[in-house]
Amino acid sequence: MTNHVLLISCADERGLVNRVTGCLLRHSLNVVENDEYVDRRSATFFMRTDLEGDVDPERLLDCLRQSLPEGASIELRDRSPRRLVLYATREPHCLGDLLLRHDAGELRARVLAVVSQYDVLRRLVERFEIPFHHIPADQCTRGEHEQSLLAATEPYRPDYLVLAKYMRVLSPDFVARFPNRILNIHHSFLPAFVGSNPYRQAYERGVKIIGATAHYVNEELDEGPIIAQSVIPVSHTQDAANMARSGRDIERSVLARALNLVLEDRVLVVGRRTLVFE
Amino acid sequence: MTNHVLLISCADERGLVNRVTGCLLRHSLNVVENDEYVDRRSATFFMRTDLEGDVDPERLLDCLRQSLPEGASIELRDRSPRRLVLYATREPHCLGDLLLRHDAGELRARVLAVVSQYDVLRRLVERFEIPFHHIPADQCTRGEHEQSLLAATEPYRPDYLVLAKYMRVLSPDFVARFPNRILNIHHSFLPAFVGSNPYRQAYERGVKIIGATAHYVNEELDEGPIIAQSVIPVSHTQDAANMARSGRDIERSVLARALNLVLEDRVLVVGRRTLVFE
Amino acid sequence: MTNHVLLISCADERGLVNRVTGCLLRHSLNVVENDEYVDRRSATFFMRTDLEGDVDPERLLDCLRQSLPEGASIELRDRSPRRLVLYATREPHCLGDLLLRHDAGELRARVLAVVSQYDVLRRLVERFEIPFHHIPADQCTRGEHEQSLLAATEPYRPDYLVLAKYMRVLSPDFVARFPNRILNIHHSFLPAFVGSNPYRQAYERGVKIIGATAHYVNEELDEGPIIAQSVIPVSHTQDAANMARSGRDIERSVLARALNLVLEDRVLVVGRRTLVFE
Amino acid sequence: MTNHVLLISCADERGLVNRVTGCLLRHSLNVVENDEYVDRRSATFFMRTDLEGDVDPERLLDCLRQSLPEGASIELRDRSPRRLVLYATREPHCLGDLLLRHDAGELRARVLAVVSQYDVLRRLVERFEIPFHHIPADQCTRGEHEQSLLAATEPYRPDYLVLAKYMRVLSPDFVARFPNRILNIHHSFLPAFVGSNPYRQAYERGVKIIGATAHYVNEELDEGPIIAQSVIPVSHTQDAANMARSGRDIERSVLARALNLVLEDRVLVVGRRTLVFE
Repeated sequence: MTNHVLLISCADERGLVNRVTGCLLRHSLNVVENDEYVDRRSATFFMRTDLEGDVDPERLLDCLRQSLPEGASIELRDRSPRRLVLYATREPHCLGDLLLRHDAGELRARVLAVVSQYDVLRRLVERFEIPFHHIPADQCTRGEHEQSLLAATEPYRPDYLVLAKYMRVLSPDFVARFPNRILNIHHSFLPAFVGSNPYRQAYERGVKIIGATAHYVNEELDEGPIIAQSVIPVSHTQDAANMARSGRDIERSVLARALNLVLEDRVLVVGRRTLVFE
Repeated sequence: MTNHVLLISCADERGLVNRVTGCLLRHSLNVVENDEYVDRRSATFFMRTDLEGDVDPERLLDCLRQSLPEGASIELRDRSPRRLVLYATREPHCLGDLLLRHDAGELRARVLAVVSQYDVLRRLVERFEIPFHHIPADQCTRGEHEQSLLAATEPYRPDYLVLAKYMRVLSPDFVARFPNRILNIHHSFLPAFVGSNPYRQAYERGVKIIGATAHYVNEELDEGPIIAQSVIPVSHTQDAANMARSGRDIERSVLARALNLVLEDRVLVVGRRTLVFE
Repeated sequence: MTNHVLLISCADERGLVNRVTGCLLRHSLNVVENDEYVDRRSATFFMRTDLEGDVDPERLLDCLRQSLPEGASIELRDRSPRRLVLYATREPHCLGDLLLRHDAGELRARVLAVVSQYDVLRRLVERFEIPFHHIPADQCTRGEHEQSLLAATEPYRPDYLVLAKYMRVLSPDFVARFPNRILNIHHSFLPAFVGSNPYRQAYERGVKIIGATAHYVNEELDEGPIIAQSVIPVSHTQDAANMARSGRDIERSVLARALNLVLEDRVLVVGRRTLVFE
Repeated sequence: MTNHVLLISCADERGLVNRVTGCLLRHSLNVVENDEYVDRRSATFFMRTDLEGDVDPERLLDCLRQSLPEGASIELRDRSPRRLVLYATREPHCLGDLLLRHDAGELRARVLAVVSQYDVLRRLVERFEIPFHHIPADQCTRGEHEQSLLAATEPYRPDYLVLAKYMRVLSPDFVARFPNRILNIHHSFLPAFVGSNPYRQAYERGVKIIGATAHYVNEELDEGPIIAQSVIPVSHTQDAANMARSGRDIERSVLARALNLVLEDRVLVVGRRTLVFE
């Protein structure tokens, strides 16, 4: 008796839920949880189903392929832990939080390594007995640096890269190798305050609420599909440094929340938007 | 082409979604939105489906009855406006808010009348050209008062009674006439601070957050199934009166939210809990 | 025995609180509430004090002027109701909410009139026996329209104009006549989604939280000092129209909250930011 | 040039702020931040002042004692790190979060040791090179166990004990040794769901929001003065175990927030309530 997640997207037409559940029934599978969504603009149907039972993947996929419109995307994922590599720069709060959750068994994932352009977080990472790779970014071009990153990262065959306050912009080439598989935490309530120093910008603008945004990384900076966001109130008594301090707490919690959603296969991407089947 | 909501609950077994969607398919109905839930304790399956298409109610219900386990509860509701009678006492904020939303066409409902044991809200109600019934509670027994309430209320054949800060406890007999059809707003985050003067209680206890709770009324005071709750932070600088003032805003918004959920047939009751299919 | 609010701003130096409280003591005034803030950049001191007692305004101001650095701004405001004129366009929710609060005596203000470029909200306004001025914006230049607005507005000698979803941009000339005396509600979490159709923009961007911003109006569109903001979560199931519906509730509540702060003299402007002494 | 916090409480009378700031001025001290509160019931004045400058504590306290009403409580605290001992049971999330913040230098405190009745958290604690004391609670009376706790704890001379999900009730005798110096995190939005298994209770009651409460411990279980609270929405799809999982995140964040407020000397106790000078 195992668990699987079935993810489907295809052209919308009448009767899709009936056909999918028909296949599941024929295979004596239980539906633990079920979610559908139709994107009206693109007339696309999305479905996420949590299955329980003895799955014969090949035969189930065959049944689904025959039942669904041509071109349907059908994915059956097992619930084994995902493989993660974390990138970080100098700040320990998001990284430490993920290491702690990993250590406590809270993540359906294995953290395989941490990579950083600096050496400052080594001690923290090694406390948790996780390999730490220091890949300096000075004295080399951006292209060379990314080659070194890849050389350090790829042997781990990660399912996802998690940028836990990694403060360098990755090139489109690099990003293209991990489509919708890089998560980032941006320290603002996007799309407010894109770019650098968002807390400074927030202070200057005099906002009364600040936020953090976890998103997939795509080629455009701070423009990838948003997975989760969170906010907290601030007051005029807080300067930019103080906002940054308050912001750290929502940064870590929103990154952890987004990562958990991804690890549970609850996030689908449609254009610039995500569907989050909670 | 009309819209209906289909509400089903029955003993859980494999294949229920397939069977329900089978019936819908045979009647060429589109599923606009679909939600299921299985209550594991009672092994009960719940489903809410938003339908689009030309429904032949009798034949559809027949199909469903034959497909579903015996004893299934199957309801097909059209989307016509629900009939409401509002009860209030002295405070205008929740009542006025509902009258305003009604006047703006924001509610899928018709407010047919307002009933109160005092005359103070008459002017507000009459501004909106809604009948106002003043049913005094003094100089009569509780039983007599409720008889007068019923006499004023029943001719309107309300689908729901909404207690918009109605500050009298209704008897079990009265409540039993409107099972899961009376909504109340309680000015605390239930189950904290049941009973009277919850803001005074909140102040004394020194809480840092206060709330409001919209719930169905059942025989036990403040114990009915909760539909929606909302909270706001408070600080030591606020006394009970000040908390009450802050609380008014969430009282009105949470009552309106709960009412809208009910009017959209999104709230099912299972024991002391509600399922809210948002 | 009356209440006043004292608002002070001046160059920062040591001992200011002592000097101000010295004057208050000499005049036998009680401090009910007291707040200070030093803006470090501009080295400016701000103070707001809630006073209780028999004030002799001239003598108190004399004492303060002699005690404070040259150029100090010192304002003593009584707590009489402020005079308001509301501007609106077609949407009733913010306007109706303010009319309701006014009617219930919740605002420390008198709503003197409502002005609109359309006639659609007349009935709502007249329900509350408030004068309604329909000032059409077609068949005239923007300048002419604003002349007509002023002609309708100025006889009321308003302390504040409140734009309750007034969907036209006011010219810098117009705005300059009411410096920090025009409040607006913008239907987004500024600075995200400036300009028109913010809910459409929010949907396209796939944000998971939407918001509303109440701010003073200055010459630049959507750039005035922010007074209050509020947000709510949204999900991928909500399209732009649905977000707009959800957004209405926070628009009305955040506008009311900002207005109450202004009416309590709790909002000071420093550059592009506000100080909110809550 | 150092920083101190001055905490004053005394019988309320006119002119207290003037007198306190008079003393500060005479000692050429800068007021960085200043907060006052008058508890009207007990007619008590409270003041918290953040000072900058070269303090001569004895002479400053003398000045204040002579200026303030008899019986005034006057405390001048330096800003050195506070000494902490943490108590935990089996759950790592709150404990790990505090260890991480401590390791990152986010707390104005030194974590001197962790004490637990089980040995399960030893590894986590030792990762951070903090002494871990396993004080078993079986095979001894409660009194004997508390004697052992004290024997392990007192040598560290802690300013505060932090119960980071410590699941045993401490006796009044034990608590009396650390008056307003023991912080606890309770996994519910108190006073809702006192006692054990609050998530189970919350599920049974069908609430739509759950919370966590950080409070000082006094003799009565779950009745100590509340320092901070936080909540998150839950839905009918979450069972008690799932709520507990969601709850962990607010438990850790609200405990950290409360601890930081305490470490910044921002929390004063008046009866069953706290004043939090944020």
